[in-house]
Amino acid sequence: MPDIPNDLAAIDTPAVLVDLDIAQRNIERFQSYAAEHGLRVRPHIKTHKLPLLAEMQQAAGAIGITCQKVSEAEAMVHGSAAITDVLITYNIVGAEKLARLKALALRVRLSVVADSRAVVDGLSATFRDAAEPLAVLVECDTGAHRCGVADPRAADALAASIDAAPGLVFGGLMTYPPAGSEAAVQRFMSEAKALIEARDIAVPVITSGGTPSMMQAADAPVVSEYRPGTYVYNDRSLVSRGVCGWDDCALTVLATVVSVPAENRAIIDAGSKALTSDLLGLEGYGHVLGRDDIAIDQLSEEHGRLVSSGSIGLAVGDKVRIVPNHACVVTNLVDTLLLVGAGHKTPVPTRVVARGRTT
Amino acid sequence: MPDIPNDLAAIDTPAVLVDLDIAQRNIERFQSYAAEHGLRVRPHIKTHKLPLLAEMQQAAGAIGITCQKVSEAEAMVHGSAAITDVLITYNIVGAEKLARLKALALRVRLSVVADSRAVVDGLSATFRDAAEPLAVLVECDTGAHRCGVADPRAADALAASIDAAPGLVFGGLMTYPPAGSEAAVQRFMSEAKALIEARDIAVPVITSGGTPSMMQAADAPVVSEYRPGTYVYNDRSLVSRGVCGWDDCALTVLATVVSVPAENRAIIDAGSKALTSDLLGLEGYGHVLGRDDIAIDQLSEEHGRLVSSGSIGLAVGDKVRIVPNHACVVTNLVDTLLLVGAGHKTPVPTRVVARGRTT
Repeated sequence: MPDIPNDLAAIDTPAVLVDLDIAQRNIERFQSYAAEHGLRVRPHIKTHKLPLLAEMQQAAGAIGITCQKVSEAEAMVHGSAAITDVLITYNIVGAEKLARLKALALRVRLSVVADSRAVVDGLSATFRDAAEPLAVLVECDTGAHRCGVADPRAADALAASIDAAPGLVFGGLMTYPPAGSEAAVQRFMSEAKALIEARDIAVPVITSGGTPSMMQAADAPVVSEYRPGTYVYNDRSLVSRGVCGWDDCALTVLATVVSVPAENRAIIDAGSKALTSDLLGLEGYGHVLGRDDIAIDQLSEEHGRLVSSGSIGLAVGDKVRIVPNHACVVTNLVDTLLLVGAGHKTPVPTRVVARGRTT
Repeated sequence: MPDIPNDLAAIDTPAVLVDLDIAQRNIERFQSYAAEHGLRVRPHIKTHKLPLLAEMQQAAGAIGITCQKVSEAEAMVHGSAAITDVLITYNIVGAEKLARLKALALRVRLSVVADSRAVVDGLSATFRDAAEPLAVLVECDTGAHRCGVADPRAADALAASIDAAPGLVFGGLMTYPPAGSEAAVQRFMSEAKALIEARDIAVPVITSGGTPSMMQAADAPVVSEYRPGTYVYNDRSLVSRGVCGWDDCALTVLATVVSVPAENRAIIDAGSKALTSDLLGLEGYGHVLGRDDIAIDQLSEEHGRLVSSGSIGLAVGDKVRIVPNHACVVTNLVDTLLLVGAGHKTPVPTRVVARGRTT
């Protein structure tokens, strides 16, 4: 039977729980590694979307935060006076977003990325009359084949365009590499840096990211800054990669068994609306803590199906705690989550301030 | 190039659009079929989560609505005085939900389901002192292997328990079958009905659901009521099953191209936070309207990757409209969507009233 602490037994479900003690330990673990290797840390807040967690990350030594959206950055900055340095790792396109970006730049030290002249031109047209220039980093594709310039020469050319663009200042190089690509990152970034510096343009920051290979970040020594996101909570995908254990998973979903229709099958009230259908290459939709024999083999929106090799040993009304495949997407589903640990006697409901920020 | 109407070009993205004219046509299409075959219609609101759409469904002839959660039912009932008849097709378990269910039963004609004595006992303990008994239907597993009693004899036994339970009244039989299971539904429900009626207990409702085979609902003539959900919007999964065409898809996601890093690749600002990672057995994450040559082959939270067989022919700043794989889960991601059609000159921002109702 799953081991559910007494103070969780009364919680209405499904509920998303975040253990602040585990989160603090996760934050400190990477911060120590980074300090040891001279890396600055700029955590991606997409995982927690909570000013409180960003403050914990900064208190531990992070130099600022990373956001993926202008709206996320707005929510975080409005949510905490301690957040004063924000990198938005996204091509900002369109009049409305650019106007909001300009307003936000008046409040905090802001930087963004670009991977094309079109994006640079939009930023320059917006900031050409601004009091302070906007720092723009060049996004580089080091193997993920998502956004990013394709090679160091293209990075160099775009850096020169940014340097020449009214209202902008070249801020450095940014990449989001596939896990384990430290050699590719080192090669790409070193070449690009040399080309850009040969123009007498400084490269103040080289920033990389991704939790799965964060403990190898120093294997690309050209990198000066790292942007881990999921590390603060961890999840089943990271346990399966050997990055952490179940005890390091700060975010869990508490669910109630609502049906036990067969000897080896139970249905819980957490479906894709609580766990999401993200697989990240895994089989099944989460791990039931304490029950290695159970698979969550099927989700519909409000139902999760648990199947066990032997008897499932659960009854209607029992509660289970689940580590989801992907913590970040779970955070985005709920208006409110429950903070536990950190000396709190009972779980503390907390609004997910930057949830659902789409633009 | 995709054909984006002028009045959509200025919209900040990603944005979820709902075309009310298409939704109205979809509602009328199934209502006509149901009327022709003597079926009552009780649409599942999980797809739209909007009182306005429920009102359109009822105006067209629906006898009430279906919800999956107490919290969804509360949001819909509070959102529209026209909603007076609600079936919650879920085992309601736990003190907090039962208390809210009891409060809701004072406001509307309410019914729920059960598939075990444990659920029936909880309902009875809550409603034994209520002014009016609660109608409880037996959920039957006709092949989906989610919730539900396994066979007609178990349905009969549970119906007898409900009939004998203080505070409850037997409300009939409910199933959510796999698509194309009309024969199995007819067999299960006919047998269960005969067993229950042999006890002199009436079976007032036999309710089935599911959009994929809704136009074959009458092939199980024992069914008296049908609960389609997705039919109001339709989506890529239903087009792929041949249930409808692209012109019947009322919900679309408007996105902006933010990067064109290669000749046959573009990145849009709609990722899994806008389109979800639901595959429903499909390849790729949505259909770009007007561009059969494009696949959305990869999503991260804020990026969607478009790849084309030939040149992609898109530029940074271009907008595309996407039919998602699964409309219902998209609705749950956004606080606000845009209503178009129905004579509106410009899109009307509308709060998704029952979004994010987890409990």
